Amino acid sequence: MSKKLTSRADDYSKWYNELVVKADLAENSAVRGCMVIKPYGYAIWEKMQAELDRMFKETGHQNAYFPLFVPKSLFEAEEKNAEGFAKECAVVTHYRLQNDPDKPGKLRVDPEAKLEEELVVRPTSEAIIWNTYRNWIQSYRDLPLLINQWANVVRWEMRTRLFLRTAEFLWQEGHTAHATKEEALKETKLINNVYATFAENFMAIPVIQGVKTESERFAGAEETYCIEALMQDGKALQAGTSHFLGQNFAKAFDVKFANKEGQQDYVWATSWGVSTRLMGALIMTHSDDQGLVLPPNLAPNQVVIVPIYKNEEQFEAISEVANGIVQKLRAKGISVKYDDRDTQRPGAKFAQHELQGVPLRIAIGPKDLENETVELARRDTLTKSSVALDGLEDHIQSLLKEIQEAIFKKALDFRDTHITKVETFEEFKTVLETKTGFVSAHWDGTNETEEKIKDLTKATIRCIPLDQEPEEGVCVYSGKPSKGRVLFAKAY
Amino acid sequence: MSKKLTSRADDYSKWYNELVVKADLAENSAVRGCMVIKPYGYAIWEKMQAELDRMFKETGHQNAYFPLFVPKSLFEAEEKNAEGFAKECAVVTHYRLQNDPDKPGKLRVDPEAKLEEELVVRPTSEAIIWNTYRNWIQSYRDLPLLINQWANVVRWEMRTRLFLRTAEFLWQEGHTAHATKEEALKETKLINNVYATFAENFMAIPVIQGVKTESERFAGAEETYCIEALMQDGKALQAGTSHFLGQNFAKAFDVKFANKEGQQDYVWATSWGVSTRLMGALIMTHSDDQGLVLPPNLAPNQVVIVPIYKNEEQFEAISEVANGIVQKLRAKGISVKYDDRDTQRPGAKFAQHELQGVPLRIAIGPKDLENETVELARRDTLTKSSVALDGLEDHIQSLLKEIQEAIFKKALDFRDTHITKVETFEEFKTVLETKTGFVSAHWDGTNETEEKIKDLTKATIRCIPLDQEPEEGVCVYSGKPSKGRVLFAKAY
Repeated sequence: MSKKLTSRADDYSKWYNELVVKADLAENSAVRGCMVIKPYGYAIWEKMQAELDRMFKETGHQNAYFPLFVPKSLFEAEEKNAEGFAKECAVVTHYRLQNDPDKPGKLRVDPEAKLEEELVVRPTSEAIIWNTYRNWIQSYRDLPLLINQWANVVRWEMRTRLFLRTAEFLWQEGHTAHATKEEALKETKLINNVYATFAENFMAIPVIQGVKTESERFAGAEETYCIEALMQDGKALQAGTSHFLGQNFAKAFDVKFANKEGQQDYVWATSWGVSTRLMGALIMTHSDDQGLVLPPNLAPNQVVIVPIYKNEEQFEAISEVANGIVQKLRAKGISVKYDDRDTQRPGAKFAQHELQGVPLRIAIGPKDLENETVELARRDTLTKSSVALDGLEDHIQSLLKEIQEAIFKKALDFRDTHITKVETFEEFKTVLETKTGFVSAHWDGTNETEEKIKDLTKATIRCIPLDQEPEEGVCVYSGKPSKGRVLFAKAY
Repeated sequence: MSKKLTSRADDYSKWYNELVVKADLAENSAVRGCMVIKPYGYAIWEKMQAELDRMFKETGHQNAYFPLFVPKSLFEAEEKNAEGFAKECAVVTHYRLQNDPDKPGKLRVDPEAKLEEELVVRPTSEAIIWNTYRNWIQSYRDLPLLINQWANVVRWEMRTRLFLRTAEFLWQEGHTAHATKEEALKETKLINNVYATFAENFMAIPVIQGVKTESERFAGAEETYCIEALMQDGKALQAGTSHFLGQNFAKAFDVKFANKEGQQDYVWATSWGVSTRLMGALIMTHSDDQGLVLPPNLAPNQVVIVPIYKNEEQFEAISEVANGIVQKLRAKGISVKYDDRDTQRPGAKFAQHELQGVPLRIAIGPKDLENETVELARRDTLTKSSVALDGLEDHIQSLLKEIQEAIFKKALDFRDTHITKVETFEEFKTVLETKTGFVSAHWDGTNETEEKIKDLTKATIRCIPLDQEPEEGVCVYSGKPSKGRVLFAKAY
């Protein structure tokens, strides 16, 4: 298989699909719409998990685990939620296979092993969790309940794409219970803020925090907060959501508590999640025609060392230097791999590490041994320089920090130059067709207008930004009055 | 709910069930046979995961993720494996629910959304993984492939018990591919050894390493290695298994590689796993009538501090001392919680921490402030002592180590005094009925005898120990010749 990628300019979508597969991140499986996350892709996901998990625990959350299946009667209890997910859920109807009497060696569903009640494979876990919370919550002393779960979920999407939209995906879903509306709203915002901090500081992805319009809300939520990122092709990507669920699930599952005054009241809820979709955001924010570009914080190997030698003697001398560098870098907490495989030439190794986005590559040849230098190549800028061996580890440490910041800055500049204020619907359409990105426009606040604009342009309201400035204006489509601008974009 | 447990002597099984629920480890869910793992139980599981994951990575393994579903045609490809799991698997047949026309507000399976091919919810992932490996392996250069997955699996067990046997459980499953039989066998043993080391050093559970007889092997394996532990009620528990799969899956899924000589050969395989069942082993090895006893290595909180005060002034003075202790312990990497809740009395806190197995409890009252001491209670021995504040952190550090060792030693003594050599079938039956534990007996090596003994006594061959001494003898049941003793026991 050629390692060369289609260029982004030629076909962005093809470039993405090829990159995911060729950089060994993921691939399609034998199961329609389900992916295999390969070791290199999974190692990046593990880094995301570890950092998010740390942030959740630091803000007082605990992990737990709830069943994969939701009995149909629980699934349908919260009406809007059920309506939102019923159309695309995997349903278990039987609990046994048997030998097929008509086809030797083949199996078939045992008709006698039909479940009394069908089980839905969780598309999200509000139903099963709130059914459980009913027994966990009696009094205000049991609140707040701050729980997160790392799990797989299944949504039977018809059109799937690796990481971005898959029938099964991995995610975390937080489900919290509170005594008051204010507290639940505070939690919803806190988590959205955690997501934004994580995306920006850790993944180097600039995001806009906002709230969704009614039509884009999570099924069953009263308010959905989100972080929205902008991909290189000018399409937006929803990178995380945090929902204020009001008392909807508490009422559907009869979860009440005795408040301090001894009165019974329904519990207030939030739920929030990010998923392996973030891998797609990561790829489409930073990568280039040579392959993946990883922010150092997320790179399984921050540094790779490649020896260049003609004979065993040279190899041994280089290996001694390389192993010394490995030790010094590890002592500083920098992850490094000495790629001493003898099954690959240096050129092939360079190409592979470039494709896989290793932030820094060190090459050491016989000349370097003489001069006490190494060749240092930076993935994000594709630049090389000769660097003294002495003090190399300090140089690398500060360079990794610099790269993390540079990658973020580059994405931020791109994002900021792709937010365009428009005043007319003509301008609106022109921007979407030419410059793309976010379009900042006045909207009259109605579902009808939102729907119309979507039909005409494929753009949706990504969010009403939290830092929206109050500004009197008229809706770009209907001409009716508006109190502030919202962000439209075509989206993944 | 009363916090007092049924005693082990009165009803061991009831004691176990109560302990799991009352110590907040897990509970049954609305889904038949599926459990909810509560935050405290999950925190212990996370500690196990972290240590095992470290050990797997240290031995060269990488994590990845494969689909939850196995298409029926793949599931049935390896005949023995399919036969072993077909009887108890959850099957997805539809991908959509719709409004039930006969019952307003209710949903039903949409008959038009029937899958062309049924999907089995993975009971284990050999089939889906080996189908994937076919594309990953071409040459000896691609081997060995050393992959692990952390995942949920489903086996539709009819009789379930929290942690020990549940329809859905969490586990890790390793799936490795090798160029030679020797290498695959070496991997199988290496991992069994990792499991044994983990069980003994980390969980303080003594285990016997051995191989399974043919009838107890994993479906599709040529050899199953295992670690077997002994519970306090004298029943054995299989705590982990590592399978040598030969070329069975490579042949079923046509996974060949070009060896160094350029010839095509089938790949050699292993698979291995431990699950949330280990939580059951942990509980039943160490705990007592007061509740859970946790080895310090697995305790989410190794130390808890409870203030005892009559007024706000005392509380503040005690809190100052307590926070100082917290800081010093954390600096030593010891996990500690200052339980300053004002909603619970000290007695209730003591009972809770005892029930939840916190290894060390510090109580600080006004007298302690005067004397510059604390009261230190040890969970495993239920002993208390007054200890000087000065040097407390060093004392605790060495005490935690001592407790870890003491708990292991206690379990080891119990296990070793419950391995009984017998020469006759009468003795065999008497031991099983009175003393219980492992029975070390000669066996003629046939399935028939094994089956007969099982029918008559409910005891199975737990394993042929790896350190089995060659010893000529006659089978305890058939009188036929035997070359060494095997271990029988009733088992979970």
